[in-house]
Amino acid sequence: MLVLHDNLGSGNAYKVRLLLAHLGQPFQRIEYDVTKAETRTAEFLALNPDGRIPLLQIPDGRVLAQSNAILFYLAQDSRYLPNDNFAQAEVLQWMFFEQYSHEPNIAVARYWLHFLDPSQVQQASLEEKWQKGYQALDVMEKRLGAADFLVGDDYSIADIALYAYTHVADEAEMDLGPYPGIRRWLDRVAEQPGHVLITQDDFT
Amino acid sequence: MLVLHDNLGSGNAYKVRLLLAHLGQPFQRIEYDVTKAETRTAEFLALNPDGRIPLLQIPDGRVLAQSNAILFYLAQDSRYLPNDNFAQAEVLQWMFFEQYSHEPNIAVARYWLHFLDPSQVQQASLEEKWQKGYQALDVMEKRLGAADFLVGDDYSIADIALYAYTHVADEAEMDLGPYPGIRRWLDRVAEQPGHVLITQDDFT
Repeated sequence: MLVLHDNLGSGNAYKVRLLLAHLGQPFQRIEYDVTKAETRTAEFLALNPDGRIPLLQIPDGRVLAQSNAILFYLAQDSRYLPNDNFAQAEVLQWMFFEQYSHEPNIAVARYWLHFLDPSQVQQASLEEKWQKGYQALDVMEKRLGAADFLVGDDYSIADIALYAYTHVADEAEMDLGPYPGIRRWLDRVAEQPGHVLITQDDFT
Repeated sequence: MLVLHDNLGSGNAYKVRLLLAHLGQPFQRIEYDVTKAETRTAEFLALNPDGRIPLLQIPDGRVLAQSNAILFYLAQDSRYLPNDNFAQAEVLQWMFFEQYSHEPNIAVARYWLHFLDPSQVQQASLEEKWQKGYQALDVMEKRLGAADFLVGDDYSIADIALYAYTHVADEAEMDLGPYPGIRRWLDRVAEQPGHVLITQDDFT
C-alpha cells in the first residue's frame, strides 16, 4: 500500500490527499508535527534528506518528495493529467508557478498567522508576503476570469496544486473579494467528485 | 522556428539554451534587459502575465513559461528525460526542489552581488540567502557524493536545472570547496556533448 508521510495542516500534503481521494486509492497516513521538527529527525532525514513532508512511499519502498512531483506521478494515465505533451507542460508551468510565486508567499503568511504566535511575526515581512501573494493571485485571476480551469477545459492536478493554499487564503488574512474568477473556480473545484476537506483525516 | 524570450545573464534562461544546444535544435533568441523592466511592458505581459523570462514560443504561436516546464516539454522523447514514470517524477522532484530551495537563495544572492550595486544589499538578507543556499547544496551533495547524476545513471534535465545556478555559485560569493561530489558533477555536466557556456549567444 502507498504510505503518505503527512501533516494535516499542510496545503502541500493536502494536494496529495485530495488527488488520492479523487482516484479512490487507499493509503496509509503517517502524521508528523512540523512545529516540533519531527521531519528533521535522523530517521526521517534518512528517508528525505530535504526534511520535508509530504513524502510518498510506494510499495517497493522507494520514496518521492515534492508535492507537485508526487501529483504528477500519481495522476499518470488518469483524467487528472492531460495526455497531450504541450498541455502536460502547461500543467507543470502552473505547478512551478505555484511553488515559486504562490506558496512561498501565501502559505508562509498562513503559517505565520495561523500556526505560530502572531506576536512573533514581523509586520514588514508579512506585508511583503501579502504583496507578492496578491501578485500571484492577479496572475491566476487573468486566467480564471476567462476560463473554468487552469489548463484546457478540464480539472487537473494544476488546479489541485493551486487550490491547496488559495482556498485557505483567509487563514493568511488575505481577501479574495477582488478575485471573482478565482472565487468561482474555488467553488468549481470543491464540486468535483471525491473532493475532501483539508482537515479530513478519515479516508477508509 | 522556436522563439526564446531570453536573458543571457539568467540561469533560468540558460537552462533552455543548454538543452536546445544539446538537442541541436535551432531557435531565435530575443534578449530582454530585466534590470530595465523590459519583461514588465504591456506587450510582454500580454505574452506572459507573470512577466518573466524565459518564455518559449512554439511555431503555432502558443507560449510556455517557467524554465523547468519548458525543459520538460522540449526533452520529450529525448535522452534527456527518462521514459519510466517514477524516474520522470524523480526528475520533477529535483526540478521543484531547484525552484523552491535552490534558486530563490543562490540565484537571488548572485543577482544581488553580481548584477546590482553591492552597497544596496542588506547583509542580514544576504546571510539568510547564503545559509539556505548552503542547505540546498547539502541536499545535492548527499546525492552527488554517491552518484554521477541526480536521477538514475544518466544526465537529464534535472542536472541541467540544478547546474544553471550551481556552476555560477562563485558569483553569489559561495564556496563549493566543501562539496567534492558537486564539483565532480559540475565537471561531468560540462563534458556532455553539445555543452555551451551561460554567456554564449551564438547558436548558428
